[in-house]
Amino acid sequence: MKSFISYPENSDFSIHNIPFGVGIFNEEYIACCSRIGDMVLDLATMYDYGFFGDIDGLNENVFEAYTLNEFIELGKPVTNAVRLKLQELLLENSPLSEDQKTVEECFYSFDKVQMMMPLHVPNYTDFYSSIEHASNVGKMFRGEENALLPNWKHLPVGYHGRASSIVVSGTDFYRPKGQMKPAGTDTPVFGPCKQLDFELEIGFVVNKNTEMGDSISTADANDAIFGMVIFNDWSARDIQSWEYVPLGPFLGKNFCSSISPWVVTLEALEPFRIESPKQEPEVLDYLKFEGKQNLDIQLEVFLKPENGSENLISRSNYKFMYWNMAQQLAHHTVNGCNVEVGDLYASGTISGTEKGSFGSMLELTWRGTEPIILSDGSQRSFIEDFDTIIMRGHAEKDGVRVGFGEVRGKVLPAK
Amino acid sequence: MKSFISYPENSDFSIHNIPFGVGIFNEEYIACCSRIGDMVLDLATMYDYGFFGDIDGLNENVFEAYTLNEFIELGKPVTNAVRLKLQELLLENSPLSEDQKTVEECFYSFDKVQMMMPLHVPNYTDFYSSIEHASNVGKMFRGEENALLPNWKHLPVGYHGRASSIVVSGTDFYRPKGQMKPAGTDTPVFGPCKQLDFELEIGFVVNKNTEMGDSISTADANDAIFGMVIFNDWSARDIQSWEYVPLGPFLGKNFCSSISPWVVTLEALEPFRIESPKQEPEVLDYLKFEGKQNLDIQLEVFLKPENGSENLISRSNYKFMYWNMAQQLAHHTVNGCNVEVGDLYASGTISGTEKGSFGSMLELTWRGTEPIILSDGSQRSFIEDFDTIIMRGHAEKDGVRVGFGEVRGKVLPAK
Repeated sequence: MKSFISYPENSDFSIHNIPFGVGIFNEEYIACCSRIGDMVLDLATMYDYGFFGDIDGLNENVFEAYTLNEFIELGKPVTNAVRLKLQELLLENSPLSEDQKTVEECFYSFDKVQMMMPLHVPNYTDFYSSIEHASNVGKMFRGEENALLPNWKHLPVGYHGRASSIVVSGTDFYRPKGQMKPAGTDTPVFGPCKQLDFELEIGFVVNKNTEMGDSISTADANDAIFGMVIFNDWSARDIQSWEYVPLGPFLGKNFCSSISPWVVTLEALEPFRIESPKQEPEVLDYLKFEGKQNLDIQLEVFLKPENGSENLISRSNYKFMYWNMAQQLAHHTVNGCNVEVGDLYASGTISGTEKGSFGSMLELTWRGTEPIILSDGSQRSFIEDFDTIIMRGHAEKDGVRVGFGEVRGKVLPAK
Repeated sequence: MKSFISYPENSDFSIHNIPFGVGIFNEEYIACCSRIGDMVLDLATMYDYGFFGDIDGLNENVFEAYTLNEFIELGKPVTNAVRLKLQELLLENSPLSEDQKTVEECFYSFDKVQMMMPLHVPNYTDFYSSIEHASNVGKMFRGEENALLPNWKHLPVGYHGRASSIVVSGTDFYRPKGQMKPAGTDTPVFGPCKQLDFELEIGFVVNKNTEMGDSISTADANDAIFGMVIFNDWSARDIQSWEYVPLGPFLGKNFCSSISPWVVTLEALEPFRIESPKQEPEVLDYLKFEGKQNLDIQLEVFLKPENGSENLISRSNYKFMYWNMAQQLAHHTVNGCNVEVGDLYASGTISGTEKGSFGSMLELTWRGTEPIILSDGSQRSFIEDFDTIIMRGHAEKDGVRVGFGEVRGKVLPAK
């Protein structure tokens, strides 16, 4: 497939991708959009021009909206048809390719569009599904022998996170303050967190509302997943370690989480499915699944000091996940917990087997004991004020590339 | 104060209360409402009749809505003014008392109104703020010496719950299924939960949106709290105990939580403020507070078997809380976590010092070892299918009674 819009070979937004987002056009007009190369497509205007007129079930301009929720609630038959229609329109020699006036009205250079939070997220859950990450953290906190807790291989451990503080890439945030108990002291102290961390994750977005009491099986899970984003689950390790027993992470996490603005559909990622790791011991029936449920998505994390250059500090891959999305969603709903359109389910930190593939500073610097040395000669045990963390991800196979772009966020000093 | 609407002396909905909710009138028309005695007031129609015309800031009919969110977002100056106006209108010999036609059009007998979920709840957090409950659970799971964890007296421990499955009183739900690991076995099993429990709680509702990075001090907390509801945090103990280490409760809680339909304002509860228990060790500065921050609210829990009668199984009081609402909200936001209008913050199980005052079956039956005997001669270690749990709460002092009515829910067999 070749498009009449030209883009570099390494663009995340090839004609094979066709992701969805929400943008502010020319600083005034908000609409749902898609992207190819460096061009952003105003889908609301394209709808008005009748480009989607032959798609069953798309009976109103759901792209005239501040979020994708209304669109994705239409379900796969409609959202897939829109994506395929866009692909068709974007092909070289398509009728659209010769209609310069329409292209000028509907296509914007990406630097004229400010991307917004693409979704209203009613509920957000964070899993803990990388065995390498869980083992690393376990080793640090409980020693080699108790690294993995007894339940870990039987169910995808997860917890509810805070939906209110999920922000789109490019949103800076203040270093959190809170209670910490420094090692060797008896009483807690209050102040700006000293161990600010990122967590490299991918989140998936649900496209339906279910009723309480209903479950989504592993076989039906993919139909209920619209697409995916890169997710930075910012973490304050010192706040977290003092507060989290027995009810889990709370203020150590809920001050900010960042997502990439483009939701990449599951269909765009279809070519990159691979076998999942063998699960031993065997899982219970409701967690069994068929087919290739892991995805080969290359991930990179960069740390950029203020006025400095980007330092690659981790290179990981989503394929490492022990528990896959189908299992996560089946587990989450097996008790009858209802899901809602726009719900975000994050993977948990994605760590590989090697040190350079770990998905958090906690692991990369082994709890601060082995600082990272940056290109400007400075060191990092954790993240410092005015540092920017940038995560990028893409899949690539047989010359086809589909990517997420990036999620970035800068830490401002505590308020 | 005496109203022209008569009601029994022990009514929760005296003229001193004036709570807010959302109702379906005559099975067809939805509006925000208030209540006195057994009469429900259709506030949308009252607005149209001009009764609130002199209230500054109430510029549109926010009562024509499916939730209270738009109303409570107007803040205390408006919501308090509406409550006081309703009190004035309801006084005996008020002009309204002599306008029978308007009364007939705006006032409905409570049995003609089906109460709906009163709020859209964007975020829900559950605290763990009763020292008696935390100690009881700690003793059962970790023994007498480690009952309270080291952080418990330094911060109000809490975790994020699931907002999607919060339902209004009267909504039945299915017994959750899930993974459990029976004592003495090596591998988990799957099936309907065997240790279904209630948790007697009170939740408070926030009336504002804050920005990420901002905090709400203990001094400002009461201004940010619209009102309170009774909250049943249904819990599957066997699912919870297998899943909850290290990230906290998840499927053991998120299948259902029930709230009472009437939100009782903080102002109605003002007369029932009492001193808080002494906190020792002293808390950090951001958790210090002034004034009377606990509330003397009597609570009762009843278990009703299908076709049986109500059995009083617990009598507790919200005054027992170690951590108060002002401290909970200050702690939750001290790291810059933003709150949203309609957010629900629940107290955690409210247990008193005596066995008969414990707020869960887990404690009342001491993990099932001392079953409760019901009036029909049957026993309960935990909740059985078709059992209904009813919680009621009210405050009373100097002849003034302000109550919540009830929250009830019936357990249906696993689906």
